[in-house]
Amino acid sequence: MLKRYVYLFEEAKGFTRFELGGKGYGLVEMSAAGLPVPPGFVITTEACREYYRNNGRFPEGLIAQVAEKLRQLEAKTGKRLGDHVRPLLVSVRSGAPYSMPGMMDTILNVGLNDEVVNGLAKSTGNERFAYDAYRRLLQMFGRIVLGVHGEKFEAVLREHKEREGAKHDHELSVGSLKSIIHEFKRIIREHSGREFPQDPWEQIQMAVEAVFRSWNNPRAVEYRRYYKIADDIGTAVNVQVMVFGNLGPDSGTGVGFTRDPSTGEKRLYGEYLPNSQGEDVVAGIRTPMRIDSVDPHLKRRLHEVADLLEKHFKDMQDFEFTVESGQLYILQTRNGKRTAQAAVRIAVDMVREGLITVEEALMRVESKELTHLLYRRLDPRAKIDPIARGLNASPGVATGKVVFDVDEAVQLASRKERVILVRPETTPDDIRGIIASQGVLTSRGGMTSHAAVVTRGMGKPAVVGCESIRIDLEREQFVTESGLVVKKGDVVTIDGSTGYVMLGEVPTVEPEMTEELRTLLRWANEVKRLGIRANADTPEAARKAREFGAEGIGLCRTERMFNAPDRLPIVREMIMAASVEERRRALEKLFPLQLGDFKEIFRAMKGLPVTVRLLDLPLHEFLPPQEVLLTEIYESKLRGVPDEQLAEKTSILKKVEQIKEHNPMIGHRGCRLAVTYPEIYRMQVRAILRAAIEVLREEGETAEVQIMMPQTSMATELAYLRKLVDETAEQVFTEMGTRIHYKFGTMIETPRAALTAAEIARHVDFFSFGTNDLTQTTFAFSRDDAEAKFLAPYLEKGLLKENPFEVLDQEGVGRLVRIATEEGRSSNPRLEVGICGEHGGEPKSIEFFHSAGLNYVSCSPFRIPIARLAAARAALKGKVVQAVTV
Amino acid sequence: MLKRYVYLFEEAKGFTRFELGGKGYGLVEMSAAGLPVPPGFVITTEACREYYRNNGRFPEGLIAQVAEKLRQLEAKTGKRLGDHVRPLLVSVRSGAPYSMPGMMDTILNVGLNDEVVNGLAKSTGNERFAYDAYRRLLQMFGRIVLGVHGEKFEAVLREHKEREGAKHDHELSVGSLKSIIHEFKRIIREHSGREFPQDPWEQIQMAVEAVFRSWNNPRAVEYRRYYKIADDIGTAVNVQVMVFGNLGPDSGTGVGFTRDPSTGEKRLYGEYLPNSQGEDVVAGIRTPMRIDSVDPHLKRRLHEVADLLEKHFKDMQDFEFTVESGQLYILQTRNGKRTAQAAVRIAVDMVREGLITVEEALMRVESKELTHLLYRRLDPRAKIDPIARGLNASPGVATGKVVFDVDEAVQLASRKERVILVRPETTPDDIRGIIASQGVLTSRGGMTSHAAVVTRGMGKPAVVGCESIRIDLEREQFVTESGLVVKKGDVVTIDGSTGYVMLGEVPTVEPEMTEELRTLLRWANEVKRLGIRANADTPEAARKAREFGAEGIGLCRTERMFNAPDRLPIVREMIMAASVEERRRALEKLFPLQLGDFKEIFRAMKGLPVTVRLLDLPLHEFLPPQEVLLTEIYESKLRGVPDEQLAEKTSILKKVEQIKEHNPMIGHRGCRLAVTYPEIYRMQVRAILRAAIEVLREEGETAEVQIMMPQTSMATELAYLRKLVDETAEQVFTEMGTRIHYKFGTMIETPRAALTAAEIARHVDFFSFGTNDLTQTTFAFSRDDAEAKFLAPYLEKGLLKENPFEVLDQEGVGRLVRIATEEGRSSNPRLEVGICGEHGGEPKSIEFFHSAGLNYVSCSPFRIPIARLAAARAALKGKVVQAVTV
Repeated sequence: MLKRYVYLFEEAKGFTRFELGGKGYGLVEMSAAGLPVPPGFVITTEACREYYRNNGRFPEGLIAQVAEKLRQLEAKTGKRLGDHVRPLLVSVRSGAPYSMPGMMDTILNVGLNDEVVNGLAKSTGNERFAYDAYRRLLQMFGRIVLGVHGEKFEAVLREHKEREGAKHDHELSVGSLKSIIHEFKRIIREHSGREFPQDPWEQIQMAVEAVFRSWNNPRAVEYRRYYKIADDIGTAVNVQVMVFGNLGPDSGTGVGFTRDPSTGEKRLYGEYLPNSQGEDVVAGIRTPMRIDSVDPHLKRRLHEVADLLEKHFKDMQDFEFTVESGQLYILQTRNGKRTAQAAVRIAVDMVREGLITVEEALMRVESKELTHLLYRRLDPRAKIDPIARGLNASPGVATGKVVFDVDEAVQLASRKERVILVRPETTPDDIRGIIASQGVLTSRGGMTSHAAVVTRGMGKPAVVGCESIRIDLEREQFVTESGLVVKKGDVVTIDGSTGYVMLGEVPTVEPEMTEELRTLLRWANEVKRLGIRANADTPEAARKAREFGAEGIGLCRTERMFNAPDRLPIVREMIMAASVEERRRALEKLFPLQLGDFKEIFRAMKGLPVTVRLLDLPLHEFLPPQEVLLTEIYESKLRGVPDEQLAEKTSILKKVEQIKEHNPMIGHRGCRLAVTYPEIYRMQVRAILRAAIEVLREEGETAEVQIMMPQTSMATELAYLRKLVDETAEQVFTEMGTRIHYKFGTMIETPRAALTAAEIARHVDFFSFGTNDLTQTTFAFSRDDAEAKFLAPYLEKGLLKENPFEVLDQEGVGRLVRIATEEGRSSNPRLEVGICGEHGGEPKSIEFFHSAGLNYVSCSPFRIPIARLAAARAALKGKVVQAVTV
Repeated sequence: MLKRYVYLFEEAKGFTRFELGGKGYGLVEMSAAGLPVPPGFVITTEACREYYRNNGRFPEGLIAQVAEKLRQLEAKTGKRLGDHVRPLLVSVRSGAPYSMPGMMDTILNVGLNDEVVNGLAKSTGNERFAYDAYRRLLQMFGRIVLGVHGEKFEAVLREHKEREGAKHDHELSVGSLKSIIHEFKRIIREHSGREFPQDPWEQIQMAVEAVFRSWNNPRAVEYRRYYKIADDIGTAVNVQVMVFGNLGPDSGTGVGFTRDPSTGEKRLYGEYLPNSQGEDVVAGIRTPMRIDSVDPHLKRRLHEVADLLEKHFKDMQDFEFTVESGQLYILQTRNGKRTAQAAVRIAVDMVREGLITVEEALMRVESKELTHLLYRRLDPRAKIDPIARGLNASPGVATGKVVFDVDEAVQLASRKERVILVRPETTPDDIRGIIASQGVLTSRGGMTSHAAVVTRGMGKPAVVGCESIRIDLEREQFVTESGLVVKKGDVVTIDGSTGYVMLGEVPTVEPEMTEELRTLLRWANEVKRLGIRANADTPEAARKAREFGAEGIGLCRTERMFNAPDRLPIVREMIMAASVEERRRALEKLFPLQLGDFKEIFRAMKGLPVTVRLLDLPLHEFLPPQEVLLTEIYESKLRGVPDEQLAEKTSILKKVEQIKEHNPMIGHRGCRLAVTYPEIYRMQVRAILRAAIEVLREEGETAEVQIMMPQTSMATELAYLRKLVDETAEQVFTEMGTRIHYKFGTMIETPRAALTAAEIARHVDFFSFGTNDLTQTTFAFSRDDAEAKFLAPYLEKGLLKENPFEVLDQEGVGRLVRIATEEGRSSNPRLEVGICGEHGGEPKSIEFFHSAGLNYVSCSPFRIPIARLAAARAALKGKVVQAVTV
């Protein structure tokens, strides 16, 4: 028996998107839902695959099946192919299972020929319409089916428009159209070596084959390669009766959204252009009307359609429609694109409307979309007057002085000036400048250009491809479309979330959570298994984190407390100490300050766990760099400053020379410092525990203290340091007359710690993966050097798909995470396992951590909402969705 | 039934060393072999364990069994306990299964009392002998059994010697001895609260218990902790009839070696002291005679004994003997300690004599012992005149100027001066000085002192605990025993293999291989499975490696070729290049030089594989350090040098600032440079392949070329770079009109490369573990910083057992090696896997690499013999030894 490849829309109910392609699937579904779809049929993707397997020949039986379906269409519509009075005209459209917008071809008005066009002109009483339709068919058929260069046709059109003084195609006279048709046929003859086929049936066959062939046009192949779509899927072909929105005032074309794609509000949204075809709406020649001002009858019909669409597709729809002589047709529908804000609102509303479940709602909002809701945004109350708009390449708002030169950017940044680097495009040589600036603006390049990729990797705002500005590097200025000149040093603001460029500093606001977002995240909490904690070093950050729903602090670094301006002199005193005794004295001065820090943080996090990481940084980080000291000393000498006055600097320089390291990232830091300078760590432990006890006394409740060692690579380190911590704790408890429970744990941020986790776990209560450092050591990539020197070329050449410091490398680093989690728990079943690297706020990475069985992720406060949603989605993936009470 | 704990020597044949202890086992074996051993019995270790399990009570039946064996001894000897005419005197000695020299106790002359001593004096006609024996018993028994402080007895002895003007114990008169005996008994009474037991049977029981108790004395416990010997093994007790070498001129004591322990020559070697007891030999009062000058009868007997011992124990023996009134007794035997040279010779000779098999010979020589044969040694023809001798803490010879201050050492070293750091002892603060010096000399500390541990870790010569010199830090000088003053700046030579210190520079010689060593290594080659290759960057090193038996070059670094004085200016030109074009021009100048290097190496290694590692170092390594440039420029400015003259330096400084890195070890280097500066790597590949082809043409044979990428962390890097290499190779083959086979491979020196080896292996022909860097990244220990800052405290505090840069860390780094080897081969079964880090020459690590299934190890040329032996021993371990034809 022959295979069946061709189905009327109403015959293919229950077929998959894979068989019907996206467009065919939508048409079939709409037919089934009782929506007014112009009749038609689908040729399945299998026919296309068979065509390629047959080396470009139609599969057996296909033509007969198409012919039969055409007869059924004729019967249905009362029109006939080639009929002079009621001709059947069809569109022949591609439609692949995966969206490949604009990649493949479509031919409209198939069925017209020299005679039918005359009949159509007469029957519609609209000569212009008929000849214009024929002109369009010739043009599309010539280009797509017969391979004539499109420019040939365009040239003729241009010539006629010029001759008639017409600006747009639709202003051409009937006479012109007839003469154009004549010339188009000549062009086809001359350039394809054959006549335009007058037989409508032949047109259809050729058009179908052209659509099949378009699956493998270079654009489509390139697109599939980029998006990793398999080459052997093939496209379906949709043959559908033409309807025309340009038959008179009771005709028209429009697009509609079932809800507001910008806010998510439940109201019909869209545009309608009477007496027009789809292309006219796009061309923007006339201004379309808002959909809510169309006549009441049509409006009611559209509301009914919107309702049906949402009931059927259970999502906000973006649909195209045509009104032909008062008759409404829906030509296409798809899930509508929407802003992050709208996505959240629609998901929450649809649950309340009973359209979808809570789990479905959670799966409707991509976690990383929330990013846009959580960056600083332009203050909505501020008057915004963009001077240009480019591509929104990397979200966030940045303000700074315009700088065109990389070295200058670096120099200004070193003087704490905020700068925006403006370049035609960026190259790896510009990295230092990108790092030094608040944001980047380029006039060339797209969403995957160097500037876009690099800034997204750094989480730095960027507007790229802003082609409306002209950059003059010579004069160090750029000129906007309106002729405004922006010179070096002028302040601009760029909004990487919208692509807008503004003059001067524009006020911004902190992100806030809408009621809908709170609801969605509440649902997320019911579904997720992963705990979500925050990386927070200050009381403010701790409070913000709690507001965003953090269930504790997973990483409280103590470096910033050492670095604060009131502490640094004491810290330096400690480092410069010539003896342990001197060092102890300096530490005694630091103690009350650290105590105060911890108390405030513990107060903010009462009842929740707070993981304090003991000092991690190498000591020389707290002293000025050697080259800076050298330069300062010599510059003073050149100015004649006597040596005595330079004594202090010189002694600091000597210390710096003594303790500086070749590779500080993997040098004398973290627990290695704790072994060689135990007094520093004793002071910290004392401050932490005393703070917790004092808060308990003052407030009746305190935080759950977790003390964490950084940079471990051996179980012996922890055995040794646990003793130090426990002994110090006992001293504090004795002094204070109160005991509290505390946990002792370690960062897992060296490969060896992960590989020997079973042994390490015997000495600790918890692990926390430091995936930033673990990525550095696993790859042997110093992050600072990598981002400045070779990460960009690696991303450009495709050696890396993503910046591993942004998205967790699952094969390498992730493998270590799995090993350490499994083996750590095997020897210590009560081991708590978390992660506090930057990956803790990145959705793909969070999904991985969920699957690896971690207990929690910890991320920066502003990423908490993203992490909550990502954790819920991770829990839902691959799981049968069950009802959850709202 | 009661357990049996006590066995006459002749009853315990076939018992293990674990049951009998080392000493008991030797006595039992000697009895069985027909050697003249004084009769006696062993109380097994099980009795001791039972004693401790019983909370320090003798196990049931033990006393009865001992009593029975004593009766048997009486029957055997015709002597009786407590008899006045023929008294039975015994020694009661400890003897644990593992050697714990000097840790536990021994009591001699048990059985004497106030009456027996008179009988003994009469029956031997030697009053002095008898009372001296009793004096010794009282002293040992008092101290060991009754816990009286030894100093009490010593004081009495000193007092009597002074009174009689005697210098040594044996010069005391009988009268004195009697009065000493009197006082000793009083001391015992006063300090132990009891009388010395006159009953010999009571003495024996108490002595046995004291030996049991000595198992847990603090020294022994400490020793076991250090050497990781279990605490619950216990000691055996040997009770043996006393024989005396001090009964007259036909008595005497001696020690013998069955072969020369220094050279290994097969000749009886040792010393004999007539009319003496064991202690006298040790005390060095009289000079013993060489064993070959004893009377012919005794000499013949000793030769017979030596022969029997070797036939029985199949190894060179170190035995103690006593001649009592013309009768020879062997008191103890053990495998003799020997020099490395002797170990090799004895092993080889014994195979030739048919005593042992080849496999046994290979297991007889510890691989690392060969180290001593392979370091530069003092020239044996040089007249050596040591001014002092300390402990040979870290082998090798070093010469340099004496320096007492760490900073001064660093300073001089920076001026390329060779210095020897001399300190009373070293601390972690001295590390920079140790690194800067050629070798270290200390006056205090033992084989596990800071200086000893650190220098061994660095492979740097050291003599420690040289107590005969007095260091005066104030005056910066040291004074030897003979009063010689050595001042700062004087040149000395230290020999860490012997502990000698010499004034001035002493000539040294390169190590060479003896005929026996060559033979042993030939056997090793027949047994080993691992291939042994060399790390060699120069033609000389390559030739040396081949001489030592390298089967190829496993690592030929190209950095030194870049660093050579004639290349560095061109390399700098390349780095300073402002464009790819300029860089290419500099590379064209380097090309012929690299070509020449490779040709010479390939010539030296004809027919063998040579793995060339492409450029690994970051480029800034070839420019002066930033702080040096800064200092130089400013110093010039201070001297008034005009800026124009500083232009070049300033431009280099600018470049250095541009390319310097935060963590160069994990920065822009290796294959990452190859991605960003492909032209450098193309030049190298071109030079390598062209050199191989030219050598082939000139000599008819060439080396097997293996091209290796450093620092890989991702399969994508290798896919990308393999293309670069293959394309370049095709160009060379076309240019030259000749093709050769070459392999392409990668270092595995980042954790991620190991963890993703399966994917990486698809793109390469071989892996070579760079365990130096892999150790750095797995631990996150920058080697330079770790060795200077925290490795010494880690070793001292026991956080690390060994320096992981010296001995492979099997748990962490080793696990990655296993993962990568297994998974790499799973996707590429023909993958060749080697290792070229420093661990490739370290025996323990080699054993690991063997067990991990690697194909070869590569190490420095001088370590090749060690590696060959270690590889053979690894192959033999855990394998039933089979005969191999010699």
